[in-house]
Amino acid sequence: MRGKFLLLVLLVVSLPGLISAESGEKLWLRYVPVSETVLDDYSTLDNIYAEGESPVINVAKEELLRALEGMTGMDVEINKKLSGSSVYLGVGLHEKLELPGIEEHLNTCGDEGFVIREIGGEKGLRIVITANTDAGVLYGTFAFIRKLQNEEEIQGLDIVEAPKYQHRLLNHWDNLDGTVERGYAGHSIWWNRERSFDDLKEDYVVYARANASVGINGTVLNNVNANPDVLTDEYIEKFARFAEVLRPYNIKVYMSVNFSSPAIIGNLEDSDPLKDEVREWWKNKVKEIYDEIPDFGGFLVKANSEGQPGPQDYGRTHADGANMLAEALEPYNGIVMWRAFVYAPSGDDRAKQAYKEFVPLDGEFHENVIVQVKNGPVDFQPREPFSPVFGAMEHTPLMIEFQITQEYLGFSNHLAYLPTMQKETFESDTYVNGAGSTVAKATDGSLFDQKHTAIAGVANIGRDTNWTGHHFAQANWFAFGRLAWDHTLRADEIGREWLGMTFSNDSAFVKPTLNIMMRSREAVVNYMTPLGLHHLMGWSHHHGPEPWTEIEDARPDWLPKYYHKASKDGIGFDRSTSGSDAVSQYEEPLASMYNNPQTCPENLILWFHHLPWNYTMSSGLSLWDELCYHYYDGVEEVRLMQKKWDRLDGFIDAERFEHVQHKLKIQSREAEWWRDACLLYFQTFSEMSIPPELERPVHDLEELKKIKFDMTHHN
Amino acid sequence: MRGKFLLLVLLVVSLPGLISAESGEKLWLRYVPVSETVLDDYSTLDNIYAEGESPVINVAKEELLRALEGMTGMDVEINKKLSGSSVYLGVGLHEKLELPGIEEHLNTCGDEGFVIREIGGEKGLRIVITANTDAGVLYGTFAFIRKLQNEEEIQGLDIVEAPKYQHRLLNHWDNLDGTVERGYAGHSIWWNRERSFDDLKEDYVVYARANASVGINGTVLNNVNANPDVLTDEYIEKFARFAEVLRPYNIKVYMSVNFSSPAIIGNLEDSDPLKDEVREWWKNKVKEIYDEIPDFGGFLVKANSEGQPGPQDYGRTHADGANMLAEALEPYNGIVMWRAFVYAPSGDDRAKQAYKEFVPLDGEFHENVIVQVKNGPVDFQPREPFSPVFGAMEHTPLMIEFQITQEYLGFSNHLAYLPTMQKETFESDTYVNGAGSTVAKATDGSLFDQKHTAIAGVANIGRDTNWTGHHFAQANWFAFGRLAWDHTLRADEIGREWLGMTFSNDSAFVKPTLNIMMRSREAVVNYMTPLGLHHLMGWSHHHGPEPWTEIEDARPDWLPKYYHKASKDGIGFDRSTSGSDAVSQYEEPLASMYNNPQTCPENLILWFHHLPWNYTMSSGLSLWDELCYHYYDGVEEVRLMQKKWDRLDGFIDAERFEHVQHKLKIQSREAEWWRDACLLYFQTFSEMSIPPELERPVHDLEELKKIKFDMTHHN
Repeated sequence: MRGKFLLLVLLVVSLPGLISAESGEKLWLRYVPVSETVLDDYSTLDNIYAEGESPVINVAKEELLRALEGMTGMDVEINKKLSGSSVYLGVGLHEKLELPGIEEHLNTCGDEGFVIREIGGEKGLRIVITANTDAGVLYGTFAFIRKLQNEEEIQGLDIVEAPKYQHRLLNHWDNLDGTVERGYAGHSIWWNRERSFDDLKEDYVVYARANASVGINGTVLNNVNANPDVLTDEYIEKFARFAEVLRPYNIKVYMSVNFSSPAIIGNLEDSDPLKDEVREWWKNKVKEIYDEIPDFGGFLVKANSEGQPGPQDYGRTHADGANMLAEALEPYNGIVMWRAFVYAPSGDDRAKQAYKEFVPLDGEFHENVIVQVKNGPVDFQPREPFSPVFGAMEHTPLMIEFQITQEYLGFSNHLAYLPTMQKETFESDTYVNGAGSTVAKATDGSLFDQKHTAIAGVANIGRDTNWTGHHFAQANWFAFGRLAWDHTLRADEIGREWLGMTFSNDSAFVKPTLNIMMRSREAVVNYMTPLGLHHLMGWSHHHGPEPWTEIEDARPDWLPKYYHKASKDGIGFDRSTSGSDAVSQYEEPLASMYNNPQTCPENLILWFHHLPWNYTMSSGLSLWDELCYHYYDGVEEVRLMQKKWDRLDGFIDAERFEHVQHKLKIQSREAEWWRDACLLYFQTFSEMSIPPELERPVHDLEELKKIKFDMTHHN
Repeated sequence: MRGKFLLLVLLVVSLPGLISAESGEKLWLRYVPVSETVLDDYSTLDNIYAEGESPVINVAKEELLRALEGMTGMDVEINKKLSGSSVYLGVGLHEKLELPGIEEHLNTCGDEGFVIREIGGEKGLRIVITANTDAGVLYGTFAFIRKLQNEEEIQGLDIVEAPKYQHRLLNHWDNLDGTVERGYAGHSIWWNRERSFDDLKEDYVVYARANASVGINGTVLNNVNANPDVLTDEYIEKFARFAEVLRPYNIKVYMSVNFSSPAIIGNLEDSDPLKDEVREWWKNKVKEIYDEIPDFGGFLVKANSEGQPGPQDYGRTHADGANMLAEALEPYNGIVMWRAFVYAPSGDDRAKQAYKEFVPLDGEFHENVIVQVKNGPVDFQPREPFSPVFGAMEHTPLMIEFQITQEYLGFSNHLAYLPTMQKETFESDTYVNGAGSTVAKATDGSLFDQKHTAIAGVANIGRDTNWTGHHFAQANWFAFGRLAWDHTLRADEIGREWLGMTFSNDSAFVKPTLNIMMRSREAVVNYMTPLGLHHLMGWSHHHGPEPWTEIEDARPDWLPKYYHKASKDGIGFDRSTSGSDAVSQYEEPLASMYNNPQTCPENLILWFHHLPWNYTMSSGLSLWDELCYHYYDGVEEVRLMQKKWDRLDGFIDAERFEHVQHKLKIQSREAEWWRDACLLYFQTFSEMSIPPELERPVHDLEELKKIKFDMTHHN
């Protein structure tokens, strides 16, 4: 058996200079040869037995075949019989193979969980992957592949897994004209393509495999700022075609709908959710959809938010609107995801408004409505406290909406590994049922009884060859899926998995690269918005720093000054009880802790407090000096990233190495830009010096203020 | 006497926050209040006696009056009698005052030297400033003012000075259309002005005072790439008007002439210098000039150089051409300054050509011809060895041409204090008459007997309010004059003088600022062209790095590749005996020293040698690593400049402080640009890594290559 590995091993070992170029198009599903140390172990895995013939099982079987052959160089066979096989896939196999102890495991696996067990044999390792459904088997297969590619120990493997959330969705903010709102990796993969669907099918299969590999089981194919046209026959048919290609990968399609659709495309007088003809229109429309897409997932709705229509246009509540849609979808087990991202221009502190609008409606939503809440109370900033809505609506399923696309974290130009941020949200304690009532528990069904649990991530996917613009942005797609599956996974574990699959298992590469990733999000916070600052970015396009922006007649809550409130007397948004009182939307002891600058976490201090420039921080430094140090630390961290990365030249293919190197240069320059822009601007108020031991700014405030971008769509 | 200082002192001491804004328009002649510690000493200097009534003496008297009143706040009187005066200015005063020991001093003072002596008296200090001429008295007066403003000890003062060079000239490369070739401080102060001469006279007086204050006694008012129109009546009249305003300041005007003028504006058949009608034309033209400007200085000629016409167009030599003009000027004591800046596009190593063309002509020039030689053999690079022409023409007066305008040292955007570079030239030992035969001695008449000695600096002056674009570029104008007067002065002494006059005498300001200045030129060398590299700048405009430039059909010796010769096998220009043999133009032991990379100074090693990337430098580093360290050191030094400068906030007026701060930011960014451009480009040949402990590049080579400027004139 060793013989047939020899040539392969020689090639890999002797030609390091010829590591083949890679475009990133295969994502983390490259299936490249594993190292010799594990090849021997894997050598028996050359014979797959798969139970059943469903499309899902066939996908699992083919994926495993492809993976094993790629990773080991062996010819792997598909066997039709149990005997003589070494990898078994399928529902009920534990019975056929008479394996004890698995049935009990399967009782905890639900619809999508799986069991993987190494059962040994005369010739070496044998593996069983089983589940209650073919979907579970598919996920188990991908989990097994991941372990192989990560060169983990297979012998004695005994794994039982089940996802924490039922609905694990990507949200594509893709417009029907092909642009992507907040997309930084090219135009939409779904819409306005010049090539035929059949022509693109291979791409969609890669997309589907990637999602299935990390457990994503749903995808919203159009922007939450929804074009009513999606509900026309033409688009329903298109959705149906996408559903068809995604179905074997256990991925449901969902649709963002415009609340005014009945009026706009249905020619009704209006879209009042309490009117019978409106309700009827939706019921008919839903039936039309399910006629084409029997496993259609449901609707995502952005209503009465940032100019979108909604039930309040007719004096109705969000519950009225959501429930109307829920009733239409209910017969088909469809769900409504109703976004809580609402705020009025002239109202109270923007950070308080979702809570104020939605919490009073708790208990009024239909059971197949899930309220979708952004992780923080404002808008996907590099750091926010968790949204106080979490935990505050005991009788309403809530789903966290994370943003995978880096609208506020450097677009696809900055390396920012997001799981550290997402873990911060998951693990935040709401205290609603006492200590330990984390946001994760308040949303995954373990704290409150709820029929549906869900989670969504706003996708960072576009037509770029590498899918996400920055190679490391692929990690955020991967990691979102992994955390949606199991929010208890550590960010570094997930990063390690991704690196092993995407680049290399060589610890000399993995360790420093993981270090770059794990420190990256805090670097972004530091050079953009440290100490709880937020929303300092450029108008409209959100690229680069513009804490000074003044736009005539602009909504005040779209301007950075609304948030930083810098003046001669200090900086920060007073959300204490003597300010906007946003602190009181949190349970005790959080409310008191946030309310007092002495106990408020310093990484959020300017979120909750307006403090004088000479306020003494825990470091003993003045607030101004502390702010300077954070901005400079951010820049230094990016320079360190560059140094670490450059030392890794030769460990991976030159193509991706140089692409990342190029992006890090942009990040380094833009980090300096952010630092100088923010500090020089705030300095006009603080009138204090940047500590003399720090490097000097290299930009002039007046010159930075002149920078203007024209990029409604950055695709 | 103390009483009348009180208010002034109170104002200065009690209102540090109100240091008045300054535009730099007064240059180093601000005459601001001196500190209390010296005021008492200066208190008797309130009565000036001036001998004579010449315009020059009047200038001296008025300047001293203005200076003393400004610096002390006293009312100073002009006395008509010797008795009762405390400052005496004029020729022959030592006799009137019966002062012993001065006559002997005056014997060493020549036409322009002076004696300053503190002669005491009942009421306190008394000062005598005398000389053999009123011009000498003028220079003595400015020297005395400088000492006062620098708050030097006056008691017991006993100074005897005489200039090292007779002709101390600025060369203005000003075109008649008002643009300035290699000018970075606005358009020409002389030409194409929209305002009337009378209107501008005040500006010219400031210019004249500034030059007189540092001993500059001649100025060439038009570009060496000369427009023949300067010899028309219209322009001769304009020159005459300028001469009139400059005359009281002992400054002669000179003219750059086009060698083809007889043919172009004289309607002669050609301009062959051996033709009688051509020679006659020049004689008549010179007479016309002297009729208008009796003290006209002479001609500066760029002939057969970079496309300019010259005697070689007619098969004649440079000597033939220069002598023709010299004969025309000789009756009026005018001089010809004939530039040796010649090189043919397809000839030998450019660095050798001036020597090859001119040294054979030694002895053939008329005695009022001075050959003007750029300090280095190529072209005003941040570092070059001295030109081998120096010392090699025993029978020909040679004058050094320095460039004050920073064509290759960052324009008016980089702080680069040039005296450290000029001192390097002055002190370079040519060894032509044994050790100690410095370039200074080979040009100032102490090594060879010569009727004329001279020196020229290409001016950095334009219509900008502060005259030179960068406030610190004023120092280069100041320092050029000081070194032309006395090349033995130390660069730091001169810098100290300039800082005291221009900014402050506070040592807390002066020390770090002087440190910035003294280290600045080496910083530029490091981030632009370390280790003897040269001519890596952008095509035509010479702004920024373009070591890669390829221009179709361009003269090869105008392209950086001609000079750096980077390839896989190494970098540098082999000028050793096995290369172009430029080394052999130098005397021993220099020739041998330069010829051997082991003995060649490392700061010139790539000027003289092409070395492999892994060549071991004296540091033990490879050439590549050493090169990297130099480029990074350059950037770090600029960052240090920024830090040092920022600590000085409050010591000087905010206007100039912030202007310099702004310029340093540009310099910091551009230093990084140079570093990245050169290293990333050279790296494509060396294929070696930038040492991992160094910061990473922040630019991409391909992006830098795309930068294109359109700036024929940067005015």
